[in-house]
Amino acid sequence: MSYQLRPGMHVLEIDTPALLLDLDAFERNVNRMAQFFAGRPTSLRPHAKTHKCPTIALRQLEAGAIGITCAKLGEAEVLAQAGVPDILIANQVVGPIKIDRLTDLARECNVMVAMDHPANVDALSRACQAKGVSMRALVEVDIGMKRCGVRPGGAALPLARQIADAPGLQFAGLMGYEGHLVMIPDPDERASRVRGAVALLQETKDLLERNGLAVPIVSGGGTGTFDMSGTHPTMTEIQAGSYVFMDATYCRIRPEFEPALSVLSTVISRPARDRVVTDTGKKAMSEEFGLPRPIGIEGLSTQALSEEHGRLTATADAASLQPGDKVRFLPSHCCTTVNLHDRLHVIQRDALVDIWPIAARGRAQ
Amino acid sequence: MSYQLRPGMHVLEIDTPALLLDLDAFERNVNRMAQFFAGRPTSLRPHAKTHKCPTIALRQLEAGAIGITCAKLGEAEVLAQAGVPDILIANQVVGPIKIDRLTDLARECNVMVAMDHPANVDALSRACQAKGVSMRALVEVDIGMKRCGVRPGGAALPLARQIADAPGLQFAGLMGYEGHLVMIPDPDERASRVRGAVALLQETKDLLERNGLAVPIVSGGGTGTFDMSGTHPTMTEIQAGSYVFMDATYCRIRPEFEPALSVLSTVISRPARDRVVTDTGKKAMSEEFGLPRPIGIEGLSTQALSEEHGRLTATADAASLQPGDKVRFLPSHCCTTVNLHDRLHVIQRDALVDIWPIAARGRAQ
Repeated sequence: MSYQLRPGMHVLEIDTPALLLDLDAFERNVNRMAQFFAGRPTSLRPHAKTHKCPTIALRQLEAGAIGITCAKLGEAEVLAQAGVPDILIANQVVGPIKIDRLTDLARECNVMVAMDHPANVDALSRACQAKGVSMRALVEVDIGMKRCGVRPGGAALPLARQIADAPGLQFAGLMGYEGHLVMIPDPDERASRVRGAVALLQETKDLLERNGLAVPIVSGGGTGTFDMSGTHPTMTEIQAGSYVFMDATYCRIRPEFEPALSVLSTVISRPARDRVVTDTGKKAMSEEFGLPRPIGIEGLSTQALSEEHGRLTATADAASLQPGDKVRFLPSHCCTTVNLHDRLHVIQRDALVDIWPIAARGRAQ
Repeated sequence: MSYQLRPGMHVLEIDTPALLLDLDAFERNVNRMAQFFAGRPTSLRPHAKTHKCPTIALRQLEAGAIGITCAKLGEAEVLAQAGVPDILIANQVVGPIKIDRLTDLARECNVMVAMDHPANVDALSRACQAKGVSMRALVEVDIGMKRCGVRPGGAALPLARQIADAPGLQFAGLMGYEGHLVMIPDPDERASRVRGAVALLQETKDLLERNGLAVPIVSGGGTGTFDMSGTHPTMTEIQAGSYVFMDATYCRIRPEFEPALSVLSTVISRPARDRVVTDTGKKAMSEEFGLPRPIGIEGLSTQALSEEHGRLTATADAASLQPGDKVRFLPSHCCTTVNLHDRLHVIQRDALVDIWPIAARGRAQ
């Protein structure tokens, strides 16, 4: 016997830990989000930090997305190589090594980058001129998250003007992410606070336009806020990412999308009547938003993760679990869980139908 | 200009995020632990879950370790391929796919595995016979961690006897890990509780020996307890792992070892006088035991990590940091940080001297 992943094999025959993707749920999620944006003035530019998977990025484009958002230059390089034609790197790309790579990338695809510092504008402009390339740049505005970005309003004007005047760069607009609001449980409160945050982008946009700068793009938003920022007249692009996979946390916020991602594990020990230990710990499942939740078996709950063990409490049906039995977990956060794996095992009605490489995993540079 | 890692380049020229290993500190750690065990009846079998790096495993063997400990079969396969001759997989290897791989591995190296269930003994014995291989097995005993393992004392006897009688398996002894004690801050309390836990292994060993079973190996221990369990007459092998790298947490427990591991990052944004944002977040640094700590710059402290950002508060010297400047972090836990990276950038006196692949990263299966 030699183990090989092969199309048609039963999900329970897959070696563990394994990251599983329910293809039907995934496709419904992709289509549901695409339909929301179909015919609206605002467009979808899904965030690939969630999946780091070229196959998924290309499917999002087929479903109508206008381009892809990345967190890192390394992710963008992998996606461009796979044929993604239009990529926003939604962060500052800083330092000579990365600026050299970024200007190389501009030869491969339409690239757009976020900026918040005049020295970065100078450096990128010089590099673009030296290589004879050009790219679009957005001014990142801090709309309350207190991470990167210039302050809303007047602070954006000199930077936008500097970009507009910089050879090799085109000032394309603004970016602001309401990341501090995406997990507010009450939808009305979330919507109200999102309106307040997007109003800061609108004021900044109005100020730039009054000063003669066109602002064709205003980018932001996420899975928690896509229908709030995505229906605001100021926003032109929404960067939602987690909707493709979902997880225990996003399912509470966004019941209209389906959990499509899970982690398959094997019971390796039954040391006590009420204790089940699996082969799947912190190195296969993120604890970022809490413990992953066992699904499909009554009476099982996660007590703790070690690096390579899941410790569960078993009552009811779960008391009959034996070493070798399989347990599936719903992660608490999809993005940091996917980052621990090299491939997605794509499942349809309990059969393996495909393997999708998470080709940009580890591309943090 | 084209970026390439090359020997002799300055550490600040390395692209970020980058996992750095201070070679001199690392070698002192390896030697310090080796010296502790030199001439003692107890031996060192370092745990490779920490580094997942064949280069480091081979150096530990050169320094006197009797073999290597792994958490996962996949790690053991990588190390055996690299020439590690003797490997303990300190967990249950369960299910037909893995048992097939485990018996293949027994052709490559001397392998030893932990067991705590009779069905697993049967399955592995049958597989060993079918392939004409044999391997050693330890009975895992739960000495208070409440994870895997049979109860101390009588519960180990039938399993040990079953292994001793099973064709293809050799009963080699006991394993018990005092993982619930390794982080007790007070060394006296830690030592006292370790003695209590190891006494459970001793009672179990005595019972087996009274029943005619030889117990040549008793394996356990970690960096937090190596000099406590490692000087107990019952223990024959200590599985310390973290001492090679150390981290902010282990440095508090074990000041005699030096922090050798750090994560190099770049400042990508200076959006406010007191705020510094780096390109290094949860996908490059574990938060398992707390936030990573910036080192070498006064007045800088980590406020929070996003997936790909470190948000720091800056006062004093740190207020002059600009985008492009570098910040090094000491992780809160080495094992889960290393698991996020593909290579170690080996540094000596601020120069890159080598790249060591973390070849078993992601080998959770």
